[in-house]
Amino acid sequence: MSDRVDQRIVVPAREGRAVRMPAGGRFRVVDLEGQQVGDLFAFSADDITEYASAEHTRVGLARLFPSLGEAFLTNRRRPILTLIADDSPGVHDMLCAACDPARYRLLGVEGWHASCQENLQRVTGELGVKRIEIPQPINLFMDIPVGPDGALGFAPARTRSGDSVTLQAEMYTIVVLSACPQDLNPINGPGPTSLAIELLD
Amino acid sequence: MSDRVDQRIVVPAREGRAVRMPAGGRFRVVDLEGQQVGDLFAFSADDITEYASAEHTRVGLARLFPSLGEAFLTNRRRPILTLIADDSPGVHDMLCAACDPARYRLLGVEGWHASCQENLQRVTGELGVKRIEIPQPINLFMDIPVGPDGALGFAPARTRSGDSVTLQAEMYTIVVLSACPQDLNPINGPGPTSLAIELLD
Repeated sequence: MSDRVDQRIVVPAREGRAVRMPAGGRFRVVDLEGQQVGDLFAFSADDITEYASAEHTRVGLARLFPSLGEAFLTNRRRPILTLIADDSPGVHDMLCAACDPARYRLLGVEGWHASCQENLQRVTGELGVKRIEIPQPINLFMDIPVGPDGALGFAPARTRSGDSVTLQAEMYTIVVLSACPQDLNPINGPGPTSLAIELLD
Repeated sequence: MSDRVDQRIVVPAREGRAVRMPAGGRFRVVDLEGQQVGDLFAFSADDITEYASAEHTRVGLARLFPSLGEAFLTNRRRPILTLIADDSPGVHDMLCAACDPARYRLLGVEGWHASCQENLQRVTGELGVKRIEIPQPINLFMDIPVGPDGALGFAPARTRSGDSVTLQAEMYTIVVLSACPQDLNPINGPGPTSLAIELLD
């Protein structure tokens, strides 16, 4: 396996992008400027009702988040993405829902605000997918400290420019990445910036 | 508010039961014999696509599980059930998917095994609900210790006979309770037993 980048898809700040990955295909999610959370979703391209599921992954691995070499599991408990490299501080989240219009209304926003849920719906719609369930995302680079009493924090992402994780698709997969538009809490540091998906040879 | 029990619905070991609760209605989930996990689901009775969501609850409360007086939130971030009393050791889980046929196959079971997912589908089907998403359940009395490194344990429930939690519906709600049939790990202590739903006056 080489690490040659075959194609690079920039995910602009506050937007989402989707890509179809063949089984065995590898890709890298890169934090271009640093301190940017990426909401990652993965669906079986053959049956959109099967998708990477946080709650099934936690049970299958007996961990809050996969370790290197472990796979995220679907809601049918099949491996869909394997975490094959982590060139970042290694802090990720799988506890928090994607931000959505209701979240921003509750945070006091009047009018429209970009959200990971709408990004997911838009880019899968552009692929011709009519209706999807909204899974709990894999929140790459997101720092949600869990206290011993179960309290959760919302801390700034610890990543620096160029940090990345590399994943391998274990089935024919639709991968969606949203550059999280959250700017009302500190998770994206000074503010939303861009990510990239690099398809590896 | 009195605590008079208006109706008692026994949920036999390994089975599920559903009940419609009006907004403001209160009910108690009782562990009849002790050490029995109850998978609790709650759907808006007016729109089954809105349901209690672990990942939205965690974000809204900044906790792994609600404290007394706090509400579970739906996937539209609205309160659906408030935890109004906890007469149990207070150990509950909201990290683990409901057990399902795939889970038991992976645990080595050949042939059919009762599961919380099938219980949910059966009892909502009996109410005339055609198709539901399978939410991450609220796993009452389930002891899943979270280590500082994110490792999860599967420990026996700490409840004794008669322990309970009391909840209040915040909207017109379909409540589903499954007496978890898991008998291949220690979560249900010596083995699956019955629960009860007590509707309070």
